[in-house]
Amino acid sequence: MKIALDAMGGDYAPREILLGAVRARRAFDADLILVGQRAAIEQELSDIQATDSLGLPEFEIVDAPDVIHFDEHPSSVKQRRGASIRVICDLVREGHAEACLTMGHTGAAIIASLITFGRLGDVLRPCVGFNYFNLQPHTLLVDAGAMVDCKPEYLVQFAQMGSIYAEKIWGIPSPTVGVMANGREDNKGNELTRATFALLKNSKLNFVGNLEGYDLPNGVVNVVVMDGMWGNVALKMSEALSEQLLERLEKRLDEMELTHATRGLLEEFHTMMDYSRIGAIPVFGVDGLMFIGHGRSRAAAVVGGIKSTIQALQVGLLDALRAGLQDTEITV
Amino acid sequence: MKIALDAMGGDYAPREILLGAVRARRAFDADLILVGQRAAIEQELSDIQATDSLGLPEFEIVDAPDVIHFDEHPSSVKQRRGASIRVICDLVREGHAEACLTMGHTGAAIIASLITFGRLGDVLRPCVGFNYFNLQPHTLLVDAGAMVDCKPEYLVQFAQMGSIYAEKIWGIPSPTVGVMANGREDNKGNELTRATFALLKNSKLNFVGNLEGYDLPNGVVNVVVMDGMWGNVALKMSEALSEQLLERLEKRLDEMELTHATRGLLEEFHTMMDYSRIGAIPVFGVDGLMFIGHGRSRAAAVVGGIKSTIQALQVGLLDALRAGLQDTEITV
Repeated sequence: MKIALDAMGGDYAPREILLGAVRARRAFDADLILVGQRAAIEQELSDIQATDSLGLPEFEIVDAPDVIHFDEHPSSVKQRRGASIRVICDLVREGHAEACLTMGHTGAAIIASLITFGRLGDVLRPCVGFNYFNLQPHTLLVDAGAMVDCKPEYLVQFAQMGSIYAEKIWGIPSPTVGVMANGREDNKGNELTRATFALLKNSKLNFVGNLEGYDLPNGVVNVVVMDGMWGNVALKMSEALSEQLLERLEKRLDEMELTHATRGLLEEFHTMMDYSRIGAIPVFGVDGLMFIGHGRSRAAAVVGGIKSTIQALQVGLLDALRAGLQDTEITV
Repeated sequence: MKIALDAMGGDYAPREILLGAVRARRAFDADLILVGQRAAIEQELSDIQATDSLGLPEFEIVDAPDVIHFDEHPSSVKQRRGASIRVICDLVREGHAEACLTMGHTGAAIIASLITFGRLGDVLRPCVGFNYFNLQPHTLLVDAGAMVDCKPEYLVQFAQMGSIYAEKIWGIPSPTVGVMANGREDNKGNELTRATFALLKNSKLNFVGNLEGYDLPNGVVNVVVMDGMWGNVALKMSEALSEQLLERLEKRLDEMELTHATRGLLEEFHTMMDYSRIGAIPVFGVDGLMFIGHGRSRAAAVVGGIKSTIQALQVGLLDALRAGLQDTEITV
């Protein structure tokens, strides 16, 4: 199972990406193609080797002269065939790799995968799934930021793809699905969510109804459906809130001279809330496997992302999505 | 400055509401009319007196035979003229009180104030302002849950009313305003927020542009504008996330036998995150002063709510809103 890894994407690329690649290769013999500016990759690898007593594993490197940076417009990826985020997709399409992974620009990754792989079956729009923190390990939020202006039919397909993911990756037979609204009652929600509710009620999914804001951190269903604009807001808000709380906690424990005694506790909280450690998230609705990690990923998060990608290959996630979407009765 | 207090609204009514009233009367001589089922109020007051060595202050009581419960449909308030949440509004309209306060049903409170006071000037829709936790004391979220399906013009008026609040209550001369979106760049956001952006850019407000999810917990502007569906989700999500984190923190400190040493710290965190202690929030856009407290308010939160209401009267919030909205150039 070969994975094309974007060595240039992410705040700490290429160094931390390559450190992660080295560790994943050693820990579970991950079969990786490193994609990016060859000279930069070779330089970093030789720097890593110089400080590493274990000796460096061999890697296949594929040159990609261009990089899409975080401040660039995502659609610029359309004209940039030499960008690493495009080349990892090309390697999958041409059969050199079975999946690809980037810690780079999310919007560009979605567009690159869409133009390279095309849409999966009758999928109207792609979306991104996000496993809501380690606080609730079996809670997937879809869409986490791909589609800003959504129609009810998009949200229903997001729910279908999220359910298939929860079934294949987490082994949950009939994952529960809910739509985020301003209360649990059937008549709650806005125009978009009320129409989505009606469609989901008539679907084959294990739909439990409307959710409210409490239900995402509390993890009451496996698949939480919302549009990508608010999925993006929800994730960033949760991230900033938990960081604020942890920062204040650390400061106060420090003032109380308890930092030493509580080091393990603080470490545990950081791990739980640090969403760069959760691994990588799949792009749903494209006909190929693209995983996206957090932009702030360091080596440990890169190893987690590689693990996520391997797991998706092992359980046959893409085939399951293809089959599951054929089976649907939703027509638009 | 007389305030009509709904003695029957809230999870811990009437006991904790009345305890709060007694404390507020003692602490700062709050002039309150207690509204609700007279027999229940008198019984509770005599129970409080029996356990209280200080002797009970005298209160004016106005009988209201009916109560709107949390599980009832908000619009049922229209037919329930005898409900305490209606009677507190009537007391304001008839000049017996200058403002009213409830810890009861938010939706019913908004409707009751709207049908009793009418709309303020040219306001299209009312909204609710929420001071985002004690984490960021000068960050007001509008709308926090009144209007689920919004138009850009509603959001602009929410921003105007929020700005006037921030100026009068917090003394901030030209409060900063932002609209919640999926990124800071001008072209981010969905159909609704992009149209709102264009209107706010041409308004007299101190509009800084689009915000992203990080910016609410981090408190980067004074007034954060979003529609009421997602304002409601954002608040509930933040509340549940912080509760989850605190619960786990307490459990782990307990396991480490540090609960005793860190009691002050835990207390501090609870106070910071417990939004029932923040006080009460105003209904904006109705021609009268209605404040709403958290349904889970205990006596301390009731005291905070009474303080918020008195402060709004002292600074002349309603007159400022009337004047400020006349001054606007937004036409619809």
